Amino acid sequence: MGNAQWQVITGGVTAPKGFTGAGISAGLKTSGAADLALIVSENDAIAAAVYTQSQVRAACIDYCQQQLEDQPSARAILCNAGQANACTGQQGWEDTVTMATAAADALGTKSSQVLVASTGVIGQRIKMEPLLAHVPTLVTQLSKQNGEAVAQAIVTTDLVTKSYALETIIDGRPVRIGGVAKGSGMIHPNMATMLAFITCDAAVSPNLWQTMLTQAVDQSFNQITVDGDTSTNDTVIALTNGQSRTPAITTPGPVAEQLEAMLTEVCIHLAKSIARDGEGATCLMEVSVSGTDTAQDARQIARTVAGSSLVKSAVFGHDPNWGRIAGAVGRAGVTLDQAQLTITLGDVVLLHRGQPQTFDPMAAHTYLKQCSELSSQAMPQTSLHSINQANEIVSTDEPASPLKRQAIAAEALAHPVQITVSVGNGSGTGRAWGCDLSYDYVKINAEYTT
Amino acid sequence: MGNAQWQVITGGVTAPKGFTGAGISAGLKTSGAADLALIVSENDAIAAAVYTQSQVRAACIDYCQQQLEDQPSARAILCNAGQANACTGQQGWEDTVTMATAAADALGTKSSQVLVASTGVIGQRIKMEPLLAHVPTLVTQLSKQNGEAVAQAIVTTDLVTKSYALETIIDGRPVRIGGVAKGSGMIHPNMATMLAFITCDAAVSPNLWQTMLTQAVDQSFNQITVDGDTSTNDTVIALTNGQSRTPAITTPGPVAEQLEAMLTEVCIHLAKSIARDGEGATCLMEVSVSGTDTAQDARQIARTVAGSSLVKSAVFGHDPNWGRIAGAVGRAGVTLDQAQLTITLGDVVLLHRGQPQTFDPMAAHTYLKQCSELSSQAMPQTSLHSINQANEIVSTDEPASPLKRQAIAAEALAHPVQITVSVGNGSGTGRAWGCDLSYDYVKINAEYTT
Repeated sequence: MGNAQWQVITGGVTAPKGFTGAGISAGLKTSGAADLALIVSENDAIAAAVYTQSQVRAACIDYCQQQLEDQPSARAILCNAGQANACTGQQGWEDTVTMATAAADALGTKSSQVLVASTGVIGQRIKMEPLLAHVPTLVTQLSKQNGEAVAQAIVTTDLVTKSYALETIIDGRPVRIGGVAKGSGMIHPNMATMLAFITCDAAVSPNLWQTMLTQAVDQSFNQITVDGDTSTNDTVIALTNGQSRTPAITTPGPVAEQLEAMLTEVCIHLAKSIARDGEGATCLMEVSVSGTDTAQDARQIARTVAGSSLVKSAVFGHDPNWGRIAGAVGRAGVTLDQAQLTITLGDVVLLHRGQPQTFDPMAAHTYLKQCSELSSQAMPQTSLHSINQANEIVSTDEPASPLKRQAIAAEALAHPVQITVSVGNGSGTGRAWGCDLSYDYVKINAEYTT
Repeated sequence: MGNAQWQVITGGVTAPKGFTGAGISAGLKTSGAADLALIVSENDAIAAAVYTQSQVRAACIDYCQQQLEDQPSARAILCNAGQANACTGQQGWEDTVTMATAAADALGTKSSQVLVASTGVIGQRIKMEPLLAHVPTLVTQLSKQNGEAVAQAIVTTDLVTKSYALETIIDGRPVRIGGVAKGSGMIHPNMATMLAFITCDAAVSPNLWQTMLTQAVDQSFNQITVDGDTSTNDTVIALTNGQSRTPAITTPGPVAEQLEAMLTEVCIHLAKSIARDGEGATCLMEVSVSGTDTAQDARQIARTVAGSSLVKSAVFGHDPNWGRIAGAVGRAGVTLDQAQLTITLGDVVLLHRGQPQTFDPMAAHTYLKQCSELSSQAMPQTSLHSINQANEIVSTDEPASPLKRQAIAAEALAHPVQITVSVGNGSGTGRAWGCDLSYDYVKINAEYTT
């Protein structure tokens, strides 16, 4: 989706006008790594959110939902890493309220204007004393330069930070969307969470902003799968504060579409970054489906293929095993005519309208091998990372500069394994992203004692 | 479900009166192992069947469905292993019809009375010439003694054969149900299939027999998961021939319930055997859920927990990681109150009504370790097995006698990892079975080039 409508800019979540951020170590992680992040808008921003569908939810999910139902607006997002504050009962709820109040006091706003997100170990209470002690420091450090600091402070077992920003021109003025995310599978021992925070400086009416976010998430974060396990804390929050001084977008139309397309692109980039950073992954896998009646059907098939353990294992083994792809397509729950099924890997057609094709298995094997090698070279070496007793990732890697990190992340995403599936003549299309299933996935998830 | 209503008997699928079987090597597998099986009833039996829900289906599925829609009756089931005859187009359909006709001719019956099942590599045509040449031999070898020979001839990458039979008394006379199954994950490279064939000598009306089978399958084969991948060829066929000379069962009631309970027990045993033989598994995992509104809800939660890659990895690592179990329960798609959630591992309560419990992690770890060790000791050593270029398992293991095999299979199932989940006060209960996720799963599924 290269698009002349926008350009990539630096700054991540603090790139849009009027947004600042901070990320510090508050002593929540035993490793001493950054673990407390704050994103702030100068003015009350229109807020939209999408949450985990899980029936087992962290207190912060209930809290955000309640605040935004009362009023879809927020000044700030406070996020801690280390403890998920899930399965913590009434105490968990009180801790969330206390966090929001502390940040609101330090910012001079109402606690209802502060949203809260948590990630880390399920069943553990947040270390409230060090957290509360560090909130004032966090506020003093707020700056436009801290997009990467925010990205670092929200990760748990991620190998790379996930940050992205785009700019477009609306009515002659720049409009920006920035984003930051974390996630790497449901994550080591009982870490839980995919989080994404989006900032924007357009002026958009609340309902329209929520609709845009929901649609963007359906095409991005809802279309990635590392291991099929959604979590107790998954949250996407999007703030838009109007500081671009462009005309308010209140109805669907070309301008709304332009903004939504850019929002979707930011979400897709962050989602792909999460899939690529899947536990033990050696490559990103992109599944594109066409020919269904609806986009929803196409997305469902794409997600099923991307999530198939057998397909994922085959990609790890560089095995162009189309029988497994056909198997996953067939069980996706979408009615289709198998005589219309075409499966392509990279440029190699494996099955055409239901008929197995003669293809060069070595060429297909080499394609998979190269995707994996090129993508792996770009990523940090897993051998330089280990997991400590507190379930935190500890790196002995040389820290790279923010610009260097952005280049690394782009390179790691530049070589996806492309699986293309056509099931007929319908106009529905959809994509999903995942990663391969390696020995390291099992190792990361098994070699630990609670 | 130990039950005084029935007893275990030998003979497997040929145990019920009037059924014989044969299993031979017809040269379909390159390894030379047995690959062609026939199960025959002396008289036309009432037939019921349940098939894969996949939209990508082998020709034999369409064939069986068509025959049984015309008339729910069959004399024989012919099954080949080696080639799945899926994704083979019109030729695949013709091969299936030819197989049925050849067996019918040799048996002196109509081709509409012969059902066909295939398992093996997707996209490969069945080797029809050797198959057709061996059908007459197969028929001459039909015998009551061949339950195990049938079990051996339908496997692909299974480490153990799966065979079981029970007997009960109805109206003073013995009634028997026998069964045979195969399956070990959707299976190495692109092997496809879980197959089960059930025989019974009761007299049951067709609609009632189909209802009993559907309900039994819902509680057994539909409740196992090795890797979430259902296949193109999954089939359960059940024949009942009335040779027990017990009164015809035509309406629901105590006698129908007695027979259905025994049918369910046979299906559950075979289903558990498949789960235990999951690729790379070191143990069987049994998830029991209670407290839901409906049995369907309980089964759905159980299946989601049993299928979670994170839970499976934790069991492999002997890690009593209840956060992952809670995560899987929450995302199962069943509305529940997390404050009512209780999770028990063996006898150890990990979470009680939403509150994390203090427990001895070492005791829980030891429990998992022992289940795995005791179960693994009973199974054939994977080191004595390898996969050849034709995707077939090759064993250098000493072949055990049928009685010895039955004892091995029982011992391997005798030490399941028990995960018990209660979600409230509803009357719904359900169980599901799976296995752990090991390095060997990835190895088996990745280390291969098509």
